[in-house]
Amino acid sequence: MTSPIFSHITLIGCGLIGSSLARAIKHHALCHHLHIIEKDDLVERVKALNFADTVTTDLSSVSTADLVIICTPLSAYEGIAKTIAPHLKDGAIISDVGSVKQAAIDALLPHLPNHVHLIPAHPIAGTENSGPEAGFAHLFHDRWLLLTPIDDHRSDYQEGLKKLSALWQACGSMVESMTAPHHDQVLAITSHLPHLIAYTIVGTATDLEDHLKEEVIKYSASGFRDFTRIAASDPTMWRDVFLNNREAVLDSLQRFTEDLTSLQRAIRRGEGDVLFDTFSRTRAIRRGVVEHGQDVPEKYKQASDHPDDCKK
Amino acid sequence: MTSPIFSHITLIGCGLIGSSLARAIKHHALCHHLHIIEKDDLVERVKALNFADTVTTDLSSVSTADLVIICTPLSAYEGIAKTIAPHLKDGAIISDVGSVKQAAIDALLPHLPNHVHLIPAHPIAGTENSGPEAGFAHLFHDRWLLLTPIDDHRSDYQEGLKKLSALWQACGSMVESMTAPHHDQVLAITSHLPHLIAYTIVGTATDLEDHLKEEVIKYSASGFRDFTRIAASDPTMWRDVFLNNREAVLDSLQRFTEDLTSLQRAIRRGEGDVLFDTFSRTRAIRRGVVEHGQDVPEKYKQASDHPDDCKK
Repeated sequence: MTSPIFSHITLIGCGLIGSSLARAIKHHALCHHLHIIEKDDLVERVKALNFADTVTTDLSSVSTADLVIICTPLSAYEGIAKTIAPHLKDGAIISDVGSVKQAAIDALLPHLPNHVHLIPAHPIAGTENSGPEAGFAHLFHDRWLLLTPIDDHRSDYQEGLKKLSALWQACGSMVESMTAPHHDQVLAITSHLPHLIAYTIVGTATDLEDHLKEEVIKYSASGFRDFTRIAASDPTMWRDVFLNNREAVLDSLQRFTEDLTSLQRAIRRGEGDVLFDTFSRTRAIRRGVVEHGQDVPEKYKQASDHPDDCKK
Repeated sequence: MTSPIFSHITLIGCGLIGSSLARAIKHHALCHHLHIIEKDDLVERVKALNFADTVTTDLSSVSTADLVIICTPLSAYEGIAKTIAPHLKDGAIISDVGSVKQAAIDALLPHLPNHVHLIPAHPIAGTENSGPEAGFAHLFHDRWLLLTPIDDHRSDYQEGLKKLSALWQACGSMVESMTAPHHDQVLAITSHLPHLIAYTIVGTATDLEDHLKEEVIKYSASGFRDFTRIAASDPTMWRDVFLNNREAVLDSLQRFTEDLTSLQRAIRRGEGDVLFDTFSRTRAIRRGVVEHGQDVPEKYKQASDHPDDCKK
């Protein structure tokens, strides 16, 4: 148990990430009052889940919040910023959980008053499931939380950074900071491109003749199955990612396509050496990934309290 | 425990699949004598693992086997077939575990004597690890085993099919038969293309500037990590797969590239509707894959006896 870090937290949007954060905040008692704002069609479902102190559809209800975290798809950010701006409390921290950070800043910052502090954030965590029922409190355990602070040297801003970091650390996250453009470039490769490719290959299979498609599903265990999991992620969220990180995604996609074309050429020409060399080089990255996974700083390690952990 | 199905089984090659099969055969006592043939550089390691009754480097020692299963990369098949042909026992069954079936038949059948029965097989199972130490007895539990019998209507051949099916079922596999060309077409999509793409994207990351590469490794949890696991598979085996299933792989790669180009165009032009529609369609396949996973016939279901199962 941790003591409350904020008095009043408001989450706008309560899908997989928002509802997981709500559960984690309640589980660790990180605020005195947790308030959730959701759209008409979801508000009753969120109430029924019973992890928030209050739930409403009214965006002007941000007025009591010390911390507002936007947990909606990116395309909703600008409208939300315009609507909540006149209601925000002096010194409030405004944050989010979006997968693209420069676009998040561009959509929010111009509309927010000078007396609040925008601290964009991105938890690198998720599952292929969506909706308020899909969340769970330990989603952020041992996962990275990337902050992309704006260029604000006021002491209140720096204080806010510390408090927001403390909140995510209390949820089990490992917190790092970087600039928004750098974040978007790294995530284009580690996340956006893999998702685009997974969506594509599963889409290619979707277009197969029916009898072949059935067998592809039946015998999917041999590689394809991993792609179907990634490609089951929320379509709205991912549409917004690709529309909002266009340049970095297109750049990494271009590199990928060149490399794929060169392997395609090697297959067509029967150049076994080229294939072998390429397939050998990639093992080094895996070793890095696995070693890094074991390298989680001791202070961030904590036993999971979730009985389903071994089903992952 | 099952009673022995064969008197004398010889496995040629003892990597991940061969050593897993050896362990499963011993665990379920599926033969009276298990003999393994390995190359010079591995033979002592295989002996030390102690799951075979005899281990040698001498290919002529196939002479006592009722069943010979070739568990080497595809590129070794032709040489093995030529060498073992004069030593094979009357009525012996010759099988394999290769990922491409027409090429396996083309490499083996012309060299085998008429008095043996070639029954190619492919267990759809594996991990990213290689070598005799990487195997484990339950690797084939609840996994498909695809037989691609040749056109041989002799009653001995049909009898051999039944016995080989029984062996794999005793190892926990679900057995199906299909033609070799059809197998190669299905696997090109479910396995070969996903591996090629995973190798490519991890290779693309390998070529990044060092500082960026480090961060890609660090923040790999967001999609990229799944690809690194697939791309850590054995380079020799996969080189041989692509050289030996060229047409089917190039065909599915062509479809994939067209679909990727069309998504790339939608991203460049900011066509959110195209992206959303594509990302929504792929969810149906995932439902099929997940439902199929739950649809394993009752007779094939068995409790795992491996303590590490929940680490998968």
